[in-house]
Amino acid sequence: METYFKEAIELDKKDKLSHFKNHFVNDEQVIYFDGNSLGKLPKKTIEVTTDLVQNQWGNRLIRSWNENWMDLSFKLSKKIASLVGAQPDEIFIGDSTSLNLYKLVFAALKANKDKFEVVSDSLNFPTDLYVLQGMIENHFNKHTLKLLNTKDGLTIDNDTLQNTISAKTALITLSYVTYKSSFKYNMKQVNELAHKNNSFIIWDLSHATGAVPVKLNESNADMAVGCTYKYLNGGPGSPAFLYVKKELQQQLLNPIWSWFSHKKPFDFDLNYKASNSIQKFGIGTPSILSLAAIEPGLDILLDAGISNLRAKSVQQSTFLLELIENELLPLGFTIASPIEAELRGSHISIQHAEGYRINRAMIAPKDDSKIIIPDFRPPNNIRLGIAPLYNSFTELCETIERIKNIVLTKEYENFGLEKLEVT
Amino acid sequence: METYFKEAIELDKKDKLSHFKNHFVNDEQVIYFDGNSLGKLPKKTIEVTTDLVQNQWGNRLIRSWNENWMDLSFKLSKKIASLVGAQPDEIFIGDSTSLNLYKLVFAALKANKDKFEVVSDSLNFPTDLYVLQGMIENHFNKHTLKLLNTKDGLTIDNDTLQNTISAKTALITLSYVTYKSSFKYNMKQVNELAHKNNSFIIWDLSHATGAVPVKLNESNADMAVGCTYKYLNGGPGSPAFLYVKKELQQQLLNPIWSWFSHKKPFDFDLNYKASNSIQKFGIGTPSILSLAAIEPGLDILLDAGISNLRAKSVQQSTFLLELIENELLPLGFTIASPIEAELRGSHISIQHAEGYRINRAMIAPKDDSKIIIPDFRPPNNIRLGIAPLYNSFTELCETIERIKNIVLTKEYENFGLEKLEVT
Repeated sequence: METYFKEAIELDKKDKLSHFKNHFVNDEQVIYFDGNSLGKLPKKTIEVTTDLVQNQWGNRLIRSWNENWMDLSFKLSKKIASLVGAQPDEIFIGDSTSLNLYKLVFAALKANKDKFEVVSDSLNFPTDLYVLQGMIENHFNKHTLKLLNTKDGLTIDNDTLQNTISAKTALITLSYVTYKSSFKYNMKQVNELAHKNNSFIIWDLSHATGAVPVKLNESNADMAVGCTYKYLNGGPGSPAFLYVKKELQQQLLNPIWSWFSHKKPFDFDLNYKASNSIQKFGIGTPSILSLAAIEPGLDILLDAGISNLRAKSVQQSTFLLELIENELLPLGFTIASPIEAELRGSHISIQHAEGYRINRAMIAPKDDSKIIIPDFRPPNNIRLGIAPLYNSFTELCETIERIKNIVLTKEYENFGLEKLEVT
Repeated sequence: METYFKEAIELDKKDKLSHFKNHFVNDEQVIYFDGNSLGKLPKKTIEVTTDLVQNQWGNRLIRSWNENWMDLSFKLSKKIASLVGAQPDEIFIGDSTSLNLYKLVFAALKANKDKFEVVSDSLNFPTDLYVLQGMIENHFNKHTLKLLNTKDGLTIDNDTLQNTISAKTALITLSYVTYKSSFKYNMKQVNELAHKNNSFIIWDLSHATGAVPVKLNESNADMAVGCTYKYLNGGPGSPAFLYVKKELQQQLLNPIWSWFSHKKPFDFDLNYKASNSIQKFGIGTPSILSLAAIEPGLDILLDAGISNLRAKSVQQSTFLLELIENELLPLGFTIASPIEAELRGSHISIQHAEGYRINRAMIAPKDDSKIIIPDFRPPNNIRLGIAPLYNSFTELCETIERIKNIVLTKEYENFGLEKLEVT
């Protein structure tokens, strides 16, 4: 490991993004590789939420709706838009990722009404599949959900895409970067395949935005959803976003009619008239505290630049894979992410028969070892989420050394097999 | 006015709830009668949100899901339950009021599938009607929405209820306290009428909870929704709640399938299995910042006691009506709320041809008069929301005196007729 540590120190010295770590609240006893699940707290967010609570709510009270809150999501839309390669008037911010997916799936199936096949994949985040299952069961009742199958357990190959997507396909919905293996699709190619077959396509960007360049307009994507609490560092359960390409906005309809999607909500008219803008996908009053908290994280990302972040992430994940190959494979680990950088996002999954207990030991060391926080996904994946904004090369070495140690000393045997509620 | 001021000072002295005002952030230059739109900031909420952001998110990061956040909504459910006369396992907290109404309307129409009339009223908050209109248009397409008509513009009488609700009625959805006139239904009586006709009933409690005793179990209500940012003082756009009576929970189904309503979300199973509990009405990851902020407001209400609050609210609104009758009617105002206390909630609406500009002048005085914040609802209603937790009798006198002054000096002529975005 010594050579790797030396190399890591050199790489950290050369890293032009290393100072961005100072924008976050850090604990020197903790190495955090779970920014793909809940991003760190930007220091500036403390200021923003304090002002929001004490000044905007406490002092200005209802007046803040006109002074700050009605425009808040529009202001944030611009920032999200530039992260995902879209126009500000193509982005709505609010609600949860699942709910936004529900709105768009409904809209797409209603608009593409003469076709009855929906395509997703077996690598998708399960809740996206639940949304599709519920949509078919509760609202349409004549569609079939086809899942693209993975041959290697990690990726979906081109043949499978070509053989499954057909002129019968009404809608394709996929995660751009999959949650477990980190497999990343070729967005442009799949969009072309969708459009060639007159299918709509919806991308879930949750595991991609903020870590991987996303080019919705350039790749001609129809629709997308994504969360803001992972690489965007927006806070626990922060509001999600939704994208609809400009030329589709007229024909796509939100199934949930409510005042925040009304053309003139404060006329209190008894009849619904949908907004013409992307705001037509709104529902109820936005959760202002959670919404305001996402801005500092967006500013940091835009400042660092998404292509710089991607370059560092690729360099880090490549370095990590080399470490894993040389240090962990001999200990019974396997790599559960694609090796080729172009085929993956910013997290790396590794598997071990004792994966769950190893992950527990990393988080709760029995001695004065640093706390290392990855997460665990069944059946035996440890996910190491690299957040290039605040993770260093040295932390990668420390993590691998610690895992080796846990396995060699069987420290994991201190933990039971029963799962915590959130893993 | 002098006699009224004297009386008010006496009443304030005798008021056993007056010290509760100290639990809130107050500005002595502002009289706030808009707690029925956005409640004040409890001082304790500053502590709670600071701890949430800096400690739970900043320091504990992802570990907080197991340590605090997974149980948060259950903990709050108990408190909401005791405010609305329900059991904790009948309350789900999360999402917006409109979205919760959407879930329940869908569930009710699906369960009561052989009847095709939906009843609401023309006094209802428009977004509730939008939800119904969208539901019929997008999902069912064979229902008729019938609106109970008001004869006096303020209330719905018994004859109208009896003549409109019939064996054809599948669902009734009403605001317990209506947003404009403050009319309050007899919940028990309407529930009986609904059940006699084999109809479901959903109550919107937004303008009632925290100001009026709500007895969901005792009155045998089927379902309810409500917001937490008005009399509950939960903060701008804070999460809403939803109630489903225990014996209906099995048959009623959430149309939006997602991981937070799954039986075992962290198994990441590819197939959806709905939770058996009230959590079946969840959708995506809850907005933790907004959710955590509602607890201090609930604690204050429970401490004050809802029947004490109602008693004070009735005393205050009766006093206010007397003031209005004697001081404002001669100036061209009319009362747009029921006179009988039993028929109204905690806000009083008054109308004046110059209502909008008078309301603007109250909020933005040109001299050193106190800022008085009511709100405005078209066409010409000024709403005075009495929050018995922090409003005094003296403030009522000051408000009426100020309104008189604005009208007599025509101070409102300083303002234009064009409306602000949020009124």
